[in-house]
Amino acid sequence: MAGIDVCFSPALLPFYTLGEKVVVMIDIFRASSSICYGFENGALEIIPVSTIEECLAYAGQGYLLAAERDGQVVEGFDFGNSPFSYTREKVEGKKIVLTTTNGTYAIEQAGNAAEIVIGSFLNLSALCTMLRASGRDVLLLCAGWKNKFNLEDTVFAGAVVAALKADFTLRGDSAVAAMDLYELYKDDLSLIIDKSSHSQRLKNLGIEKDVLFCLETDICQRVPVLKNGVLYIPEGSLPGV
Amino acid sequence: MAGIDVCFSPALLPFYTLGEKVVVMIDIFRASSSICYGFENGALEIIPVSTIEECLAYAGQGYLLAAERDGQVVEGFDFGNSPFSYTREKVEGKKIVLTTTNGTYAIEQAGNAAEIVIGSFLNLSALCTMLRASGRDVLLLCAGWKNKFNLEDTVFAGAVVAALKADFTLRGDSAVAAMDLYELYKDDLSLIIDKSSHSQRLKNLGIEKDVLFCLETDICQRVPVLKNGVLYIPEGSLPGV
Repeated sequence: MAGIDVCFSPALLPFYTLGEKVVVMIDIFRASSSICYGFENGALEIIPVSTIEECLAYAGQGYLLAAERDGQVVEGFDFGNSPFSYTREKVEGKKIVLTTTNGTYAIEQAGNAAEIVIGSFLNLSALCTMLRASGRDVLLLCAGWKNKFNLEDTVFAGAVVAALKADFTLRGDSAVAAMDLYELYKDDLSLIIDKSSHSQRLKNLGIEKDVLFCLETDICQRVPVLKNGVLYIPEGSLPGV
Repeated sequence: MAGIDVCFSPALLPFYTLGEKVVVMIDIFRASSSICYGFENGALEIIPVSTIEECLAYAGQGYLLAAERDGQVVEGFDFGNSPFSYTREKVEGKKIVLTTTNGTYAIEQAGNAAEIVIGSFLNLSALCTMLRASGRDVLLLCAGWKNKFNLEDTVFAGAVVAALKADFTLRGDSAVAAMDLYELYKDDLSLIIDKSSHSQRLKNLGIEKDVLFCLETDICQRVPVLKNGVLYIPEGSLPGV
């Protein structure tokens, strides 16, 4: 039986073997949610980059440029990582270059995995279907906040573990704890907002609407996959397509 | 109000400021439990060292030498980190040099903190009394297992946060999550053994009795403190002494 485990911080990745695994990058508030929503609304490609400089290098080539640091849009950029910047009218048919405080850093740190995909509450069921079908070991990678543990990424990881526990072996205590925490919060995910320091930080930035939206479940049917440094939706990966 | 936070792995310490804090080293199965029990039974000093070679360097100088790797006593050593090696008849009046897989490594990583003390369920109340009196910010450092998160250290950290939450500000999501997990397990701490991969590993080594003992609460009244690389019990630190 394939195994499933949870890594609470990109800084802990060196203690996990990645080789043959599917790594699910999780940055609920807000990068992974916005990426899922962007593809649902017809974005063609999202290129995650680590630095603002790398993002700027794509200027003038037809890309939308998105840059977020510490929860805010970086000055001079089209947009940051609010999901409401990734609506159909803004992103359909577009290619986007994105750099964020935690999410794109986490993707970079997981560079050695066999496959990297993006997970959020928005595409939870589609993600679980895909992971179940893959037959591979799974590592759920919480982007956290500047390499520290955070609650919302962990609760989401716990939701995935809970959904897959009949089909996967739990490999570590972090998978157990994530599932325990999901069980505590699942009946009212908005409790995370009251408790999480990070969402408190986002609330202070006036983006509580974003945070609530990122806790919606299953409004996206697609699982973004990283290939050669580019996120896209593989052809034929949609249910019934 | 002083703050309290939890660090789930020694590898995450670089993301916390240590300067003026009291760091509580937590390695429930079994180093921090055995250290507390050893001092309760009259040990004079325990010198934590990182490597087996450093431990061996104290041979022939009147020290008891204790070395554990991967849950087992290292060949040729007096004992490892089973609490039952730290009984009064074995350690009273003795000085001990100790190296363990996770605990002594965690102590070394926290070297820059203002104060380092040892916490376990065995000295939970004494520890909380001491932390409350210190007036300093507190960082609860879970030793984990080879830099990975573990359940028992986290649940204990949550017990401390729960006991101190009226007197301290919770500084991060890991403190929230640890307290949540403690609430889940507090009525029957032995559930940790069923769920934790690490305690399963210890069970396989035939030391289930150790593990159960390490979940006993408040049988020790002393809080070991690190000074100049040596753990000891400060004079006058005992209640009523």
